[in-house]
Formats: sequence, C-alpha cells, structure tokens
Amino acid sequence: MIPNVLAERYASDALKAVWSPEGRVAIERDYWIAVMKAQRDLGLDIPAAAIADYERVKGRVDLPSINARERVTLHDVKARIEEFNALAGRQFIHLGLTSRDLTENIEQLQIHRSLLLVRLKTAAVLNALARRARQYRALLITGRTHNVPAQPTTLGKRLAMFGESLLLAFNRLENHIATYPLRGLKGAVGTQLDQLTLLGNAPRKVARLEQRVVRHCGLKNTLNAVGQVYPRVLDFDTVSTLQQIAAASASLATTLRLMAGLGLLSEGFQKGQVGSSAMPHKVNARNCERVCGFNTILNGHLAMTAALAGQQWNEGDVSCSVVRRVALPDAFFAADGLLETLHTILNQMVVYPAVIAAENARNLPFLATTTFLMEAVKNGAGRETAHEAIKEAALAAADNLRNGREPALLETLANDPRLKLPLQTLRKILGDTARFTGAAPAQTDAFVKTALGIVRKTKGAATHTPQKLL
Amino acid sequence: MIPNVLAERYASDALKAVWSPEGRVAIERDYWIAVMKAQRDLGLDIPAAAIADYERVKGRVDLPSINARERVTLHDVKARIEEFNALAGRQFIHLGLTSRDLTENIEQLQIHRSLLLVRLKTAAVLNALARRARQYRALLITGRTHNVPAQPTTLGKRLAMFGESLLLAFNRLENHIATYPLRGLKGAVGTQLDQLTLLGNAPRKVARLEQRVVRHCGLKNTLNAVGQVYPRVLDFDTVSTLQQIAAASASLATTLRLMAGLGLLSEGFQKGQVGSSAMPHKVNARNCERVCGFNTILNGHLAMTAALAGQQWNEGDVSCSVVRRVALPDAFFAADGLLETLHTILNQMVVYPAVIAAENARNLPFLATTTFLMEAVKNGAGRETAHEAIKEAALAAADNLRNGREPALLETLANDPRLKLPLQTLRKILGDTARFTGAAPAQTDAFVKTALGIVRKTKGAATHTPQKLL
Amino acid sequence: MIPNVLAERYASDALKAVWSPEGRVAIERDYWIAVMKAQRDLGLDIPAAAIADYERVKGRVDLPSINARERVTLHDVKARIEEFNALAGRQFIHLGLTSRDLTENIEQLQIHRSLLLVRLKTAAVLNALARRARQYRALLITGRTHNVPAQPTTLGKRLAMFGESLLLAFNRLENHIATYPLRGLKGAVGTQLDQLTLLGNAPRKVARLEQRVVRHCGLKNTLNAVGQVYPRVLDFDTVSTLQQIAAASASLATTLRLMAGLGLLSEGFQKGQVGSSAMPHKVNARNCERVCGFNTILNGHLAMTAALAGQQWNEGDVSCSVVRRVALPDAFFAADGLLETLHTILNQMVVYPAVIAAENARNLPFLATTTFLMEAVKNGAGRETAHEAIKEAALAAADNLRNGREPALLETLANDPRLKLPLQTLRKILGDTARFTGAAPAQTDAFVKTALGIVRKTKGAATHTPQKLL
Amino acid sequence: MIPNVLAERYASDALKAVWSPEGRVAIERDYWIAVMKAQRDLGLDIPAAAIADYERVKGRVDLPSINARERVTLHDVKARIEEFNALAGRQFIHLGLTSRDLTENIEQLQIHRSLLLVRLKTAAVLNALARRARQYRALLITGRTHNVPAQPTTLGKRLAMFGESLLLAFNRLENHIATYPLRGLKGAVGTQLDQLTLLGNAPRKVARLEQRVVRHCGLKNTLNAVGQVYPRVLDFDTVSTLQQIAAASASLATTLRLMAGLGLLSEGFQKGQVGSSAMPHKVNARNCERVCGFNTILNGHLAMTAALAGQQWNEGDVSCSVVRRVALPDAFFAADGLLETLHTILNQMVVYPAVIAAENARNLPFLATTTFLMEAVKNGAGRETAHEAIKEAALAAADNLRNGREPALLETLANDPRLKLPLQTLRKILGDTARFTGAAPAQTDAFVKTALGIVRKTKGAATHTPQKLL
Repeated sequence: MIPNVLAERYASDALKAVWSPEGRVAIERDYWIAVMKAQRDLGLDIPAAAIADYERVKGRVDLPSINARERVTLHDVKARIEEFNALAGRQFIHLGLTSRDLTENIEQLQIHRSLLLVRLKTAAVLNALARRARQYRALLITGRTHNVPAQPTTLGKRLAMFGESLLLAFNRLENHIATYPLRGLKGAVGTQLDQLTLLGNAPRKVARLEQRVVRHCGLKNTLNAVGQVYPRVLDFDTVSTLQQIAAASASLATTLRLMAGLGLLSEGFQKGQVGSSAMPHKVNARNCERVCGFNTILNGHLAMTAALAGQQWNEGDVSCSVVRRVALPDAFFAADGLLETLHTILNQMVVYPAVIAAENARNLPFLATTTFLMEAVKNGAGRETAHEAIKEAALAAADNLRNGREPALLETLANDPRLKLPLQTLRKILGDTARFTGAAPAQTDAFVKTALGIVRKTKGAATHTPQKLL
Repeated sequence: MIPNVLAERYASDALKAVWSPEGRVAIERDYWIAVMKAQRDLGLDIPAAAIADYERVKGRVDLPSINARERVTLHDVKARIEEFNALAGRQFIHLGLTSRDLTENIEQLQIHRSLLLVRLKTAAVLNALARRARQYRALLITGRTHNVPAQPTTLGKRLAMFGESLLLAFNRLENHIATYPLRGLKGAVGTQLDQLTLLGNAPRKVARLEQRVVRHCGLKNTLNAVGQVYPRVLDFDTVSTLQQIAAASASLATTLRLMAGLGLLSEGFQKGQVGSSAMPHKVNARNCERVCGFNTILNGHLAMTAALAGQQWNEGDVSCSVVRRVALPDAFFAADGLLETLHTILNQMVVYPAVIAAENARNLPFLATTTFLMEAVKNGAGRETAHEAIKEAALAAADNLRNGREPALLETLANDPRLKLPLQTLRKILGDTARFTGAAPAQTDAFVKTALGIVRKTKGAATHTPQKLL
Repeated sequence: MIPNVLAERYASDALKAVWSPEGRVAIERDYWIAVMKAQRDLGLDIPAAAIADYERVKGRVDLPSINARERVTLHDVKARIEEFNALAGRQFIHLGLTSRDLTENIEQLQIHRSLLLVRLKTAAVLNALARRARQYRALLITGRTHNVPAQPTTLGKRLAMFGESLLLAFNRLENHIATYPLRGLKGAVGTQLDQLTLLGNAPRKVARLEQRVVRHCGLKNTLNAVGQVYPRVLDFDTVSTLQQIAAASASLATTLRLMAGLGLLSEGFQKGQVGSSAMPHKVNARNCERVCGFNTILNGHLAMTAALAGQQWNEGDVSCSVVRRVALPDAFFAADGLLETLHTILNQMVVYPAVIAAENARNLPFLATTTFLMEAVKNGAGRETAHEAIKEAALAAADNLRNGREPALLETLANDPRLKLPLQTLRKILGDTARFTGAAPAQTDAFVKTALGIVRKTKGAATHTPQKLL
Repeated sequence: MIPNVLAERYASDALKAVWSPEGRVAIERDYWIAVMKAQRDLGLDIPAAAIADYERVKGRVDLPSINARERVTLHDVKARIEEFNALAGRQFIHLGLTSRDLTENIEQLQIHRSLLLVRLKTAAVLNALARRARQYRALLITGRTHNVPAQPTTLGKRLAMFGESLLLAFNRLENHIATYPLRGLKGAVGTQLDQLTLLGNAPRKVARLEQRVVRHCGLKNTLNAVGQVYPRVLDFDTVSTLQQIAAASASLATTLRLMAGLGLLSEGFQKGQVGSSAMPHKVNARNCERVCGFNTILNGHLAMTAALAGQQWNEGDVSCSVVRRVALPDAFFAADGLLETLHTILNQMVVYPAVIAAENARNLPFLATTTFLMEAVKNGAGRETAHEAIKEAALAAADNLRNGREPALLETLANDPRLKLPLQTLRKILGDTARFTGAAPAQTDAFVKTALGIVRKTKGAATHTPQKLL
C-alpha cells in the first residue's frame, strides 16, 4: 500500500489518530450510536437492546471487510453502514439520515479536533519562541533590510518580530475555533424533511436531536440554511488559517536559513544526529527548509479549497469530494509536521555570539554614521560639511571592503579634520551598544509577555514536547 | 496611458478615490502634517508657520511633476517629499521617518478604508439578498444535488443557503476590521531608533507620537515587534477575507447561471439595456459570469499574497513591493466590482414562477416516491412489496422521460394493485406542497432575521445603491 | 497506516507500481547495479562477484528494516544504502555518488515512466472521445453560450470541441516527453568533482558513465550545468502539462454535468451499479464531478511546483524535498485517476436523443429567426420592417414561455402580414435541420481524424480499458 | 484615471503599444479592413470605395467618444463598431461576424506579438547571462547547498546553472510560439454558420476567408473544432510559459540577493543612481527583489488562467472575460518588466573577487578535507585512521570558528602525526584551485555556446538594451 507521506513521515500520532481510517470508523460508530440514543429519547422505536448490540461490537474495525463491501456497492457510506449492521445484527443506525448527515458532521468533528491540536502546538511553539526571544532580548545583532546590513537590532527582537506574525495567526485560529459551526442534521437538500417526517413534523424535536448531535461532536454552534453540505468557504477559512500559521513560521525559518548561511547560528542536531562523514562539521538547515516546504504545500491546499469555495452548485454537488479527501487531512498533516519541526528547531538551535559580534564589528561603524554625524555637529562641525565628510569616508571604506582591504572607516573618520572626532571618541560611541538597539529589548519583552499569556491559557502548551523528527 | 481595467471598468468611485494616485498624495500629505503637528506638540522645533505653509499647498497635486522627480531620484517617496517641500518652501516633513514609516501606514490606512467600504457593500448585498429570500420564502422549487433533481426546497431557502456563506464571510470581515493593527512609526528596522533619538530617548514620547499617528489613520491598535514592514500575513489575511466574500458570491452566481440555463429566472437587464438585434429575447447571465470572474481574479491575488506572507527575510526586503502595488488595490477593485455587480443582479433579476412550477410538475412525482411509500404502507401494503412496486414504476417513468414519452409515473402507480393508491390520492399528496418543503421557510426566515440585523447595525447599508454597470 | 488516498482509491495499478515504496527500492537497486557495472567497465576496482552478490539479493525488499535504519541515521538514502550493503555483504554501491546522484535520477525516471503512462491514457481517452464524436457527428443539439440557447450545433461537434483542448494538451505532453532531460551524475554541487576524481580526472570517462546512466533510465538527454539538483522549473513543466490535460477534461466533464442537469444525457452506471434505494432512477454525474475534483487537486500541485521553481538557492537547498514527495506522485495519481474516470464516463454514458430533440423543438424557432428574416426579405418584405416584426414576435414568444404559456412563435410569425411567411414555409425551414449545423459535422470529422492518428501511433491506446472505479 | 501600475512603472514601450486601448482600436480596425477586403475578393458586395472610406479614417482614435458609446450600449464591441462606421459613414465592417470573431482573434494577435517580444528579451537576457558566465567561467567560488558551504564551484558555472533553467524555459517558449493556433472566424457557437450563409454555403470560400485572417494576424495555424471562444487551456499554456521564464529568473535573482548579503557582489547602480543619504554605501538588491516580485505576480496570473481553463461551459461563457482582461496583459507586463529588470542587473552588477577569495580562504580548508584524506592515504596513512584524524580536526576547527577563534584547520592537520601532511603540502593542495572546480568551467562553456546559438538565431537579441528602470 502507498502510504500518505505527510502523515507517515511528519505528522504526530495524536493527529494521525484523528484521520486514520480506523479512527474514522470509530468516530462514525460513536456518532451513529449518539444519534440513535437521541432518536430513541425523542420517541423513535429503537430498542435499547439494539443500541447495546451496536455498542458491544463498535470496537471491531475490519477495514478489509469494509473495503470489500465498498467494491460491491461503489458507495463508501453504504459499505460502512452494512458492516456495522452486520456486526450488530441490527438495522437501526442511520435512520432518516442521508450520507451527508453522517459524513459532513464527522469531517467537521475531525477538523475541529485537529484545530484544537494545532492550537495546542502553536501555543507550544510560541512558548519556545518566547523563551529564545527572552534569552537573546539584548544580544546586539546587525539588522538587515534587503538582506544587507541596515541598522542594529537584537536577536531577541528579530525572533519576536516573527513571533508577532505568529500571534496574529494564533488570534485568527482562536476566533476560527470559537465560531466554527456544525452543519448538523439537515437531510438531502438541507430542509430537514426526513427528520421532520420521522419525528412527526415536530420542529422542536428535530432541533433537540440536532443539539444532541452538536454537543456530541464537541461544538457549540450549528449552521442554519445549508444544503446537502456545509458551505465550503468554511474549509477555505480553515486552510487559510493554517496557511497563516505556516507563513509566519516559514518567514522565521527562512531568516534562520539566512543566518545559518552567515554562520551566525545553526539549527543544531537532534540527539544522536551527526554530520555526514565527508563533512562532519556541516550543519544543514534542513529542518528550517522543511518548514518552508510545509508552507509551500499549504499554498497548494489553499488553492484547492479556494477553488471549491466558489464553485458550489445548487443544493450541493460532490465535485469537492475527492478534493476534500486530500486537502483537509493533508493540510493538517502539513501544519502539524511544520509545528513539530519548528518546535524542534527552537529547542535545539545553537547561536554563536562570537560570530554575531564579529559581524557587528565589521558593520557597526557603517551603521553608526548617523550617530557620528550628530556627535560631529554637537562638537561644532557644520552639518553639511560633516555629512559630506562622512559620506566620502563611508564610500571609501565600502570600496576598501569590496576590494579585500581593511575598511578602516573609523580611522578615516578620525583623521578627517572636518569632523573633530578622535578615534577614541568614535570607539566609545561604538562601545555603547545599548544606544543602538532602541526599543528592541522592550519590544521583545512585550512580545514575550503576550506569548506567555497565551501559553498559560492554553492547556498543555507549556509542557508539550515535539516527537523525534525523521 | 494604460488604465487599470479593474478600477476603470468595474470599481466604484468611492473606492477609486482611496487608491488613485491623486488620492494617495492627498492622504500622504495629511499624514505628514499630522506627524509634524504631533512632533511639534512633543517638543520638536517645528514652526507653526511651516506647518501652515504645508497646509496651504497640500491641495496642489501635480502628478507629472512628481513623476518627473521620480525619474531623476529613482525613488518614489523621495520624489513626493521633494515636491511637497518645494511647494511649501519648507523642509520639516518626514523628520526621523524612513520611507516605510510613511508608506506602510498610508497603505494600511488605504486598506482599512477599503475594508470599511467592503463591509458596507457586503451588508448592502445581504440586504438585497434577504429581501429576495423573504419574497420567495415559500416558493416551491426543485432542489438539486449533483445538478439533478433531488428533493423539493424553496427558492427563498436556496438564496438563504448562499446567504449563509456570505454571513460567515461577513463575520470574518468584521473580526478582521476590529483587530486590524497599524504598523506605526518604527524606523528602519523596527526599533524606533530614529524617533527615540529625535525625541530625546523618551519611550513615552515615542509612544504618544505613535498613538497620534494611529488615531489619525482611523485605527485603534498598533503592532509591537515589527521590522521594516508590517507582517505580510496581514495582507494575506485581508485578501483571504475578500476571497471568502467572493467565493460565497460566486457560488450564488453560478447557481443563478444554472437556473437561467433551465429558464427558471434571468438576471434581467439594467435600465435601458436591450438584447442583441439578432437575439432580442436572449438574456445572458453575463453579470453572474462576471461575479465568477472576479472570484477567479481574487484566486490570483490570494496566491500572490500567500507567497509574500511566507517569504519575509530578516527585518524586511521589498520583493513584496511590486506585488503589493498590484495585489492590494486590485483585490479591492475586484471585490468592489463583484459586490456592485451582485447587488445589481439581485435588484434586477426576474423570476419565472410558471417555469418553476412546470419544472416541479415534471419532477415532483419522482421526488415524492418516499411519501407515496409511507402512504401505501399506511393503507396496508407490505413495505417491501410497495418499495418494489414504486421502484419499478419510477424506473419505467424515467425510461419514458428519457425516450420522449410521457413519464406517466402517477398513472403507473395508481394502476399498480400492490399499492392501493388511487390517482386522486396521489394527486392530493402532490398538491399539498407545503409538506415537501420541510424547514425551508423557517430557515429562510432565520437567515433574513440575521441578515437584517447586520444591515441595521451597518450604517448606510440599507440605502446603498450600486452604480450603473458597464 | 494512513494510506495515500489518491493512490489507493483512484490510481491504476500500473502507476502505483512506479511510485510504491517497494517499487522505488527496486528501481534504486537496479540503478546502483547499473552504475557499478559502468564504473567497473570504466576501470574502477569493483569485483564482478560483488556485483553478482548485489544482483542476487536485490529482490529482498524489507521496508520495516529500512525504516528502522532510517530512524537511527535520520537519513533515508543512508538507510537504503546500508540495507542493500548488508544484504549483499559488500560495500561497492554508491561509489563517488552523493545522495542526489541517486535520488534525482530515480525520481526523474519515475516521472518519465509516469509521463509515458499518462500519454497512453490520454490517447486512450482521445480514442473514446473520437468514437463518441463520430457517433453523434450530425446529431443536432441546441448550442449554448452563457448557458442559454444560442445557435444549433451537433453533439459530436460539442464533444470534438473539448477534444480540441485535449489535443493541445496531448501535443504539449508529447513535446515534454521528447525533450525531458536527466540530471545525470553531477556530484554535490554539480561539478562532477567526485566522479572525475574517481575516474582519474578523465572527463570522457565521466561522460561515458553518465551516458550509461541516462540510457539505463530510459531517456536520451542530460542536463549540462546543474547544481545539487535538476532545475525545479522542470517539475513545474511536468505538473503544468498534467494540469492542461486535466483542465481540458474538466471542462468536458462540467459540460456533461450541465447536460445531465437538462436531462439530455446521463453519465450512466458501471456494470453492477444501481441508483439509491430512495431514488432508483437518479443518475448522479458523480464521475464527472470527480474529474472536476481531480483538476482542482492539480491546481494545488501546480501552485506547489510553481513556488518551488522560483525559489532555488545557490547550488541547491532542500526546501523542495518534502513538497516534491507530495506533489509529484500525487499529481500523477490525480491525473491517472482523472483519465481512468473520464475514459469510463465516455464508455458508459447514455445519450437521450428524444430529450435533445424536444429541447431543439422548443428552441429552434427562436434560433432560426435570422434565417426567417433572410427568407422574408427574399420573399419581398422590407428588411427593417421584417426585422421589427420578428423582434416583436420573439419577445412576445419569450414572454409567453416565461409565463407558462405556449410560446407560439411560429404561429405569431405566420400571422404577421409584414412577413409573408406561411406556417408551412416556416415549418419547412425548421425541418431542414442540416442547414443549421454549418460546419459542425465536418469539424467533427477533422477532429476524429486527428485523434485517431494519435491513437494509431500510441501503442496500446486503442485497446486500453480503464480499471473498475470505486 | 487609475493607471495600470505594471504597465506604467515597469513595462517597455514596445509591449505597451500592443496592449494600450489606442493600440487595440488600431489593431481592430486593420483587422476589420482585412476581413472586408477578403470578403469582397470572395464575392461579397462591398464597394471598394467603402473600404477606402474606412482606410481613410482608421487613424482617428477617439477613446472618449468610444467610451461614451459603450456607456449607452453596455457593449464594448458594439460601441467600437458604431464609432468606426460613423467615422467612415459606411456600414460594411463586421459582416457575418459575432463579437468573438473579432475579439478572440485580436487578443490572440496581441498575445502572439507579445510572445515574440518576450522571446526577443529572453534571448537578450541569455546573451547578457552568457557574457557574465564566460567572464567568470573559472572564478573559484564557494558552492553552497542548504545555504552553507559545500564544495567549490565557479561563479560562471553558478550563473550557467540558472541559465540552464532559462534555456529550458526558452525552448518551451519557442515551441509554444511555433504551434500557437488562431481561433479564426467560427461564428457564434463555432460552426461557421453565418460565414457559410454569407458566402453561399461554400466551405472552401469560408476556409479561404479564414486563411486570409490568419495570415493577417501573423500566424500559421487555426483551430478546428472550437465554440464561441478558443480553448482557455491555451491561455494557461501561455501564462505557464511566462511563469517558467520568471521562475528561472527569480531563482537567479534570489541567489544574487544571497550573494549580496555575503558581500560577494552587488547588483550595482543604474547611471545616475546613488545610495541613500544616510547610507551612501548601501546597495540594496532592490532590482533582484523586484524580479522575485514579478515571479510572484505571475503565480497569481497562473492561478487565474488555470481556473479558467477547467471551467468552460458548453459552447462558451464569458465568466472568463473580466479575468482575461486582467490576467493576459498583466502577465505580459510582468514578464516584460522582469526581463528588462534582469537584463539591467546583469549589465550593471559588480562582482567583488577579493571578497569571494576571502570567503574561499575561510572555507576551502574544510571543503578540501576529502582531498587531504586521499593525499594522506597516498602518503601511507591508514584510511580509517586518517579519516578519524581529519574528522576530529574539522570539528575542532568548526568549533573554533563558531566561537570567534581562528579555525586553524590547516595547522591542526599539519600537527597531527597520524596524517603526515606538512603545512606546506596542505597549502600547495589548496593553492591548486583548478583541481577543485571539476567540470565547472567546461559546463559553463557549454552553456555559453548554447545560449549564444539562441542569441544568433533570434533577430535583435544581441543588440537589445533594456529601458531605464524606475
């Protein structure tokens, strides 16, 4: 059998349990039983003994038998109904239900459980990220725009910066979970005709039945005016929420890859991992790359669900069926793998402060020229004159650097009589690194506070540890 | 000059004013003035007379002059600074600002204003849709799944069904607007270094300055730890919100196209519009098609912004610059054009109840077979026997239909001695159409109530009228 | 284990064999042996007995053992090397190769074999489509633009029309296969350093080794200046070729769904398949919908590979690795499932000429108005007068139709003294249906000829039969 | 008016002329005249004087007048027909044509001309790239995989590597242009009914008319069995070809951005361009970023055209109309802007060999360890012993590097008695840089040869110069 590579190589056991064929059968059977119990309570003639018969056999999941049935009926739901009925020796499940009264709700239940897992893991990543941000809140690093040195910042702030994106994504996820509505029991075209008929045309009974179903699925809201299926914009909303988490993560991972390229840090090794025999010292940012890869995969699922959302015909078609079989579980597997991977990176990454300091030493004189200008003016130099002197010196120093010579920017500035800034003064300015980081440490602290607030209110986030990666 | 086709053919004047080059210059100049005033209030040495000079000339927007400056400087922001300074004869704008301290906030302001327009128009569409849903709340229509007749519903319910998707989208839009945060004045790499230096290293002053800016832009929140730019996941969030509105609309428009194909309705003509001379009676669903087209265009902008969101390098690069110049205004133009078009369709569409009734007459006997079965059993027929009889009759009738003969389903059933259902009884069952629509009218009412609640709380929605379409 | 749903539910056995884990191990081992033999022939000290040892054990594929090794090494290629070496008790495979010298070529070989399968099946679909087009080459049908009746055409021509799209896609596929180049043995950064070193710095020997590898893989060309990996634009080219096939198919399938909605045809049942018990006569176009779904899935893979193609760093990164593990096999599974499904539909679809004729009868009078105009003018009526008379009649008839009355267009025209066209004349014009189909039959014939030309030159296409669908 | 930002900021005058509203009107009028002449030659009663009247006024393009007409008719083609007729005082254009007989062919003509421009510019970029590759064919540079040093290569080879992707894209473009077919004159649903009627039901005459039209449009082939429109897979084919060019370019640009981040090169300044006043030495890779941005924009157009391709209904709908108005010109504007930008970058980029050499000096000892191993074994050291010694040394040196100490790898190796490799020997090995570049120079030469072959056969490519960028 060809395995689902996202599930089998990258996703966690908890998520796989939600989407495995066996898991799905178990979820469905519990659902059918819940519906039967509710129908019985509402007056349908379903013997308690029949329900007990179903309960007794619900654990016997025989996929080959189900598949064999499907190859006859060419209908997956029918196959599973027949199997369960045959096991129980009864025919009381699925009364007044269409296939979609089963599958829509089951899939929404799977989605909802998966969203809760993603929330947990995003919070866990925020925890790890906040820890790292705090650790490096004041570590001066050369900030870059357009990938070239621009102005100093701190490593903690840089991490917090990507954390800010993740916070936005987390908030959207929270809102999505809080408002996520179940389709409920609506019948073939959404009018509840069959349940109404079954329950004596009593809308209140149907409403009560539906509430039982919603509660069973772990949700709070139902949709009102739907057709055969729930609106597919909801799937798009789900996947675009995952995409947002992934995008924030991928930008962070990309920046870590850039930093690894400069030797400023490495993503580190997992316990037991070693470099290649030819290059034992080489630490590839392969997990960071993988995070980017998961994001790209979600781009694909986003395109799929966006297409579905705008192409619903009448009360429903199933041109979406094959797409959702792929896009929904795979989007969660990718998001889950991404979060597990990013968490591992944050845990094991190794920062090289000495290399960072050396990079700063090369760049800081250039980045400090606006400060030098201010000091020169303070010391009595004319603004335009000083500006011109500094410009000449910076261009000459850059020219030196690009031609393999010492840049000697400080020396050139010190020797320029227009500026009146002795070398000692220049060095003193550079030494006072705190003056270059501006609000970076404070911004980092603010991020950490917000992130840890989320961690605290998300049960399990503080203690979650990622599985070992392949 | 090559015009922006989305803006010039489809978007409304209100939205064009937000994104026009002239409009942008005006917004920027107000922003610069607001920053100057705040800086002056916080102690910077900016003469009131200088601010007055800027105020005096701010209305003189000379795009050719600005463009000429840009062709020299190769820097759009510099060109606009020079122009404004030259007009005022002063040099006090943009103090301590980097280009992004201007452009990020201006673009977010444009986005925010555009979102408010989209909210207004979505609410207006909900209003028109609710009106139509209420009008047809009980009009029996053949519900379709897989595009073939499945079970009856009502036309009002069908409209409400797509309205449900639009409600989901509206709620997401509301949440997005409510939480949309401004980047604020953060400087070259986001550390606020330059504003801090300018304001004597007083974080509180910088915070106050920033609050003034945020308020000027019409927002409530600022981001904390950002780099040169605000996180591009925010743009993705914006565009995916628009996509959700568009997808819900496109599914409705697609279903209207399907119904037009069956002759059940037409999207109607605008005042003064006529059919072609060769086919004067032909009403093409071209506006409905256009709605679908706008949705497809947004698929493209979604792909663009999803790509940007996951590719942020360090403190910022501008590989996003050219993309955002295209994707942000165009996404709003497309969404705006879509809502104007859909609103027009809902206003002018013409429903043909007689054709709908004729379709029902053809289909209802088939769709009512489960009811017939119940009645037969009630009258004493054996369930399996009756089921078999009905199945035979339905297949024979379908065969008749497909071969150009009268289906004669009722007659066949009436003549089958196994069923004991005289023709009169069958006709009486079919005549009681209310029994076939289930909860459809009630669901429609519930949708209408929710939609009108939104209309009420969205100022201007109830009275908004779309512009004439091209 | 969670299965790959595209592979297990939809793809054919032939394609699954190319991409299964077992299949891949077998392909790799053959490849390693081919490389060893070539290296030995070129002078490397590899004992013939060692090669024999590998040959002997190559069939023993023990996936759990390989997976266990990978969980230790965290490197999939290493795990497979170790396993094969351990089985053979030798260490001669993979000499001078980097992982990518193995995996890139193996994956390209899998892609190439899959492309050949897709070519076969596309040709087989063209065969089935040509057969149907020929069958209905002259069957008059109401052509539709904007989904409403526009002008007559023939059913054969309609099928040929979508066939034309498929021909375009087939031609691109042919070109892609003909020019598809292998990366070859290029080493860690593409400079062939290791093979050169191994083979005594003899570029000719390295070239000969590479040629052996290319031939072993079944290809003709190699790339020249590559890095660690082959250019990912090649994967994009592959997937966009599949997308083109899928899009042409999906447009056809969509039109079949529309026709099914009008009752003009049904996609039919597979042998043994029956309708639902509640609706035994209902034939859902679920396979057509599935074709559309596969196309949507490919939209996603297209987005994934487009993203990879433009994000290659330096001599190579593996941010593409996880994406390609998903997108490449899945794109082929989807394309394969699509072609199997479409072939089945074409085989089993049922056309209802009587329903088509009835639709024509309703529409033809309207569509023939331009012909009536010409005839009226020929009979001496003034052109403008006749045009006005016809316009009035058409609008009145359309109004009748939309209000449940007989349109009575012919009668109205016959009674209009301005036109001088007795009813008999009008009926005669309508009866001469051949005059309305224009070039449609000839165009159909031309399509059939081209399609069958392709079938003839594509071995196996004429006799290929799709597997039974789920 | 809101301008098309892609056209006005980035595209070249040559391309804008193809797509401007004025340009389109001119193309259409020439087309109408060509059709009239052909119709007259084939026997239609069109006075030569009438054609002369059209010829005389065809240059008078008054867009406001046309737009005013459209706001009345709500039909863009009608408005342009009326305008041209009014100018000429005649009514002979557009005889027997439907709107699509005009617009489809005109748009294909625009596409075809645009493709020829893209071919020219891609060849010009290949020329510039080949020149740079030849210039640096042997310049040793540290090759990187996973963005960290992996093995040496040459800068010329690195450029050739991306050139290889561009060659693949160019070849696809060539094939696309060579096979691009025109829809031709097919009438309302593609059956040529109206032209057949007009030309006395003589298929040969219609064929001859169509051939004249095809020749007028500059193409060779026509499509056969089409409907109202040409198959939209053709647009997808066009845009995915552009995407392939863009992706190859974006990967190159991304790698240049990475190299700029390491200080190895800069993209340089255009004539007259200077750095910012605060950072005069800073050279942002903003044009490289822009290339990446254009690629992202094309991702969006790809998504749009992929969606259209699979959603064609019956003989045609125009849900594609608004999408194609945006996606087709914009995709060409983006591709054009990209090629102009990339060409400029290749012309003006500045390489810093000294910085490259310094990077090599830091990395080469690590990258040469496999060579050292071979030499040690040659000198009599045991293989395993030597391997262990080198591994220890490499890890220690890497540790030094990461902690701010001199790596001292050569010294450590020289001092290890297990290796018997004195410092002088190690230095000599490192000094022989040619031994590390393998086939890189030869591969570069091969690329240059192929690229220049294309340049030679593409008229104008060798002399094309990009416009000045904004």
